[in-house]
Amino acid sequence: MGARLARIAPGEVDLEMMYAASFCQQNGYLHAGATASLADSANGYAAFTLAPAGTDVLAVEFKINLLAPARGDRFIARGRVVRPGRTLTVCLADVVAVDGDRETPIATMLSTIIIR
Amino acid sequence: MGARLARIAPGEVDLEMMYAASFCQQNGYLHAGATASLADSANGYAAFTLAPAGTDVLAVEFKINLLAPARGDRFIARGRVVRPGRTLTVCLADVVAVDGDRETPIATMLSTIIIR
Amino acid sequence: MGARLARIAPGEVDLEMMYAASFCQQNGYLHAGATASLADSANGYAAFTLAPAGTDVLAVEFKINLLAPARGDRFIARGRVVRPGRTLTVCLADVVAVDGDRETPIATMLSTIIIR
Amino acid sequence: MGARLARIAPGEVDLEMMYAASFCQQNGYLHAGATASLADSANGYAAFTLAPAGTDVLAVEFKINLLAPARGDRFIARGRVVRPGRTLTVCLADVVAVDGDRETPIATMLSTIIIR
Repeated sequence: MGARLARIAPGEVDLEMMYAASFCQQNGYLHAGATASLADSANGYAAFTLAPAGTDVLAVEFKINLLAPARGDRFIARGRVVRPGRTLTVCLADVVAVDGDRETPIATMLSTIIIR
Repeated sequence: MGARLARIAPGEVDLEMMYAASFCQQNGYLHAGATASLADSANGYAAFTLAPAGTDVLAVEFKINLLAPARGDRFIARGRVVRPGRTLTVCLADVVAVDGDRETPIATMLSTIIIR
Repeated sequence: MGARLARIAPGEVDLEMMYAASFCQQNGYLHAGATASLADSANGYAAFTLAPAGTDVLAVEFKINLLAPARGDRFIARGRVVRPGRTLTVCLADVVAVDGDRETPIATMLSTIIIR
Repeated sequence: MGARLARIAPGEVDLEMMYAASFCQQNGYLHAGATASLADSANGYAAFTLAPAGTDVLAVEFKINLLAPARGDRFIARGRVVRPGRTLTVCLADVVAVDGDRETPIATMLSTIIIR
């Protein structure tokens, strides 16, 4: 989806993607599946920043609430580790749509990630 | 994502998509976001089959459990209405990967959909 | 909560509890927390029927949709294993309220359970 | 469960309950269902602080991640409105166990609440 890493810190990753018609519905809003992909990736990378060397991370499950129509020039998912674990890590991501200077929250995702 | 309607009945919709490298990770598995998109769409269409004429449906939230690596020639999401409502409809989708004759369950999604 | 095991089979457990005012809200409906407890326990026991000897099970997370007011003489949660695993097992529970002969679905729960 | 309102502000409610053996498992930990009840109530009250006069609130669904064993003298659920709405409000609750001066996060819940 052409997302790029906008910020990285221990337990925190921001992923950004530009508006692209191919990921939008007929009304110009980002598709829920694309919003979920972005948030899932941000949470996965956030978990990975705290995972031991030589391990990999994989989403076990996630739940997303879609808060508002996803309309903007670009979209940012901010993934944060809520609780790191040896086997399972829990992450929370907030997704915003950015239109010029204005940010609108469009989704929140709570994820369970396994470290392998 | 090139999904097609494989089956439709009141409260039941099957969506099918063929394997496409662009929706897969580096290991050839369908990306979790693509699996979620397919299941979300199947649940949305299933809800729509029972919605009153002139209304539209929109996902409020969903939760997906990823059950197994998503590897196959094609993928089918079977969306089913669990409880239809005037305002909110609850749907459950099972997603399978199909490899020749063999079906492997890869995900289960529980969704809340608003009728507007 | 005085729940009893009503049925057990590999990967399947039904738990039943009688109406008790102490678990109900002021309007006589079973509290969402009590409904969740019953479903969570049914899913945990269902997972346990397939867990290796000497292991224990613990809920990692669950999501519940409340489908209808929980009014009845008794309540049954039917927990089913969707996918058994060595580390994680996924279960789905349907909860019904029973009023005389009539069953009303009141909740659906999707759970992730860890085997330890 | 004997919970009391510990703090209230627009969109924010803290509920507190003391340790009680009757809500605990055989190992002395608060039962997942009791943790879920506390968090569900905190989110419901938080949504209610922003709901129009004359309306009522009801949980449509919630998802909870259990982060750590729930052991303590008392338990606090902090419910916060993430997005208020006319029909649906989304809330997030953090639950901690308090043991003397020390707080341990034990659960996070993401809820969808309907205003009626």
